[in-house]
Amino acid sequence: MSLIVTGSIGIDTIHAPTGRADAVLGGSAIYFAAAASFWSPVRLVAAVGEDFPAELEAPFHAFDIDLAGLEKREGSQTFRWTGKYLEDMNDRETLSVELNVLAEELPPVPEAYRDSRFVFLANTHPGGQLELRSQFGRAELVVADTMDLWIENERALLEDLLRQVDGLVLNDSEALLLTGERNPVIAGRKILEMGPGFVVVKKGEHGALLVHRDGAAALPAFPAADVVDPTGAGDTFGGGMMGHVAKHGDTSMAGLVKAMAAGTVVASFNIEKFSLDRLLDLDRATIDQRLKQYAAMLNVA
Amino acid sequence: MSLIVTGSIGIDTIHAPTGRADAVLGGSAIYFAAAASFWSPVRLVAAVGEDFPAELEAPFHAFDIDLAGLEKREGSQTFRWTGKYLEDMNDRETLSVELNVLAEELPPVPEAYRDSRFVFLANTHPGGQLELRSQFGRAELVVADTMDLWIENERALLEDLLRQVDGLVLNDSEALLLTGERNPVIAGRKILEMGPGFVVVKKGEHGALLVHRDGAAALPAFPAADVVDPTGAGDTFGGGMMGHVAKHGDTSMAGLVKAMAAGTVVASFNIEKFSLDRLLDLDRATIDQRLKQYAAMLNVA
Repeated sequence: MSLIVTGSIGIDTIHAPTGRADAVLGGSAIYFAAAASFWSPVRLVAAVGEDFPAELEAPFHAFDIDLAGLEKREGSQTFRWTGKYLEDMNDRETLSVELNVLAEELPPVPEAYRDSRFVFLANTHPGGQLELRSQFGRAELVVADTMDLWIENERALLEDLLRQVDGLVLNDSEALLLTGERNPVIAGRKILEMGPGFVVVKKGEHGALLVHRDGAAALPAFPAADVVDPTGAGDTFGGGMMGHVAKHGDTSMAGLVKAMAAGTVVASFNIEKFSLDRLLDLDRATIDQRLKQYAAMLNVA
Repeated sequence: MSLIVTGSIGIDTIHAPTGRADAVLGGSAIYFAAAASFWSPVRLVAAVGEDFPAELEAPFHAFDIDLAGLEKREGSQTFRWTGKYLEDMNDRETLSVELNVLAEELPPVPEAYRDSRFVFLANTHPGGQLELRSQFGRAELVVADTMDLWIENERALLEDLLRQVDGLVLNDSEALLLTGERNPVIAGRKILEMGPGFVVVKKGEHGALLVHRDGAAALPAFPAADVVDPTGAGDTFGGGMMGHVAKHGDTSMAGLVKAMAAGTVVASFNIEKFSLDRLLDLDRATIDQRLKQYAAMLNVA
């Protein structure tokens, strides 16, 4: 059940009330791929620059990730992001961002990836997402992420993309921006009218909401006391969800809710340490144990 | 399994983006009692003034509520509240409040109520809650609600109360105010150190969190598109929860989570119409149908 993800890889510097991490591995694609790999092998399409340090490469080899689509581009620099979490870890400020290679042309999709059945178009310019979308005509499920920047500045292209994907994943604030609706159930329904068969609204510590042609479902976050670094929580959620879907092939509403539970639990581990550190010392048995605990917590029948 | 609630009964005027309701029935105790009565008979202790209009009395008789403790006090006026919901229905402003009878002495607890096994001390001055607490020495479970006003101004009395109750129900903003902790799991643990065996943190549209000596559990709200009037959502949640506990007598962590699910679902009906209008045309079969839907939605095992 081949799963492919396209997105960013970056060098992050993170300031948080819990500490600081300098020049660590980050970016939507690597968080997504690492999380998804606990359920399914992942094919990665992403680019870094010639400055990408060898010591940040280890995680690429620690997970079941196909690196044929990872380009180290000569003459380019890696995407860099510096962010600061405030006392309320739900709020963060971007202190600096250098797009670098992300502002250049997309890395090519290896020929061997063209038969991918499950495609995740992580957040990038919707023009790039459309171009990637066109390369996976045989895909069973194509899901996209997006952000406020594109909703505000590339609305027409984004609407074009929405007509061509099966699912959309976005934050609650982005759902409001896209639809003008504060109620995420109503916002989700409006997005369905734009094309996708389902929408997942991510609410951070408050969990996630699925709005599907067959109804709506909400899941809470796993109750977490040890939040060290929320970076990548949304990407690991998406990765766990898509990895689970690729593994089980169930895109029904009930199947997606189970996949969201997998995403919820792997994200709850990710935030326990900086960067990908917690994912690196995690195994499927530990995940399954917490998934069992999560399912038991939600057993209200 | 006798359940008693003490709290306010008021005449509310509500402005909302969805409409306006003038001089309708409100107050924590009646919302709580009506919701709880779907699971268990409820004994009510509350006072209204001589101005209380006959046309607002019907709901008292529409539910299984013992009115022996409802005092109509001559020479006093009923509590009145006027509030306005903003575009984001999570925010509300109090436009005016007249405490009236709420600022006077508490109504007496009928002798016949003294054997109540389940006691809910709805939000009022902690001095009054302590006085009521002392009248139910034989209770199996005593749960209190509180608010920012008492946390800020009557801290010592509130801490005294916390040493004498089994559970506390409060909003997330109140949990932060009480403990200085933004993470509701950590805030809940700090509250446990103050005395109660469990804490329920209400998060409105984001559901509720239980922090218990045996662990923590989160439940989402029922995904609702038709929010007309959020007034009483927290009180009906508490009522459904306590009614369920009084019915089944299960105060274990798993029992409380099931009770919270009952509260979640009855609250999701309450917000569909102004005042108690939706509860008045609701029956247990309709509640059970949605509870089944809610449990199925949360079945991620």
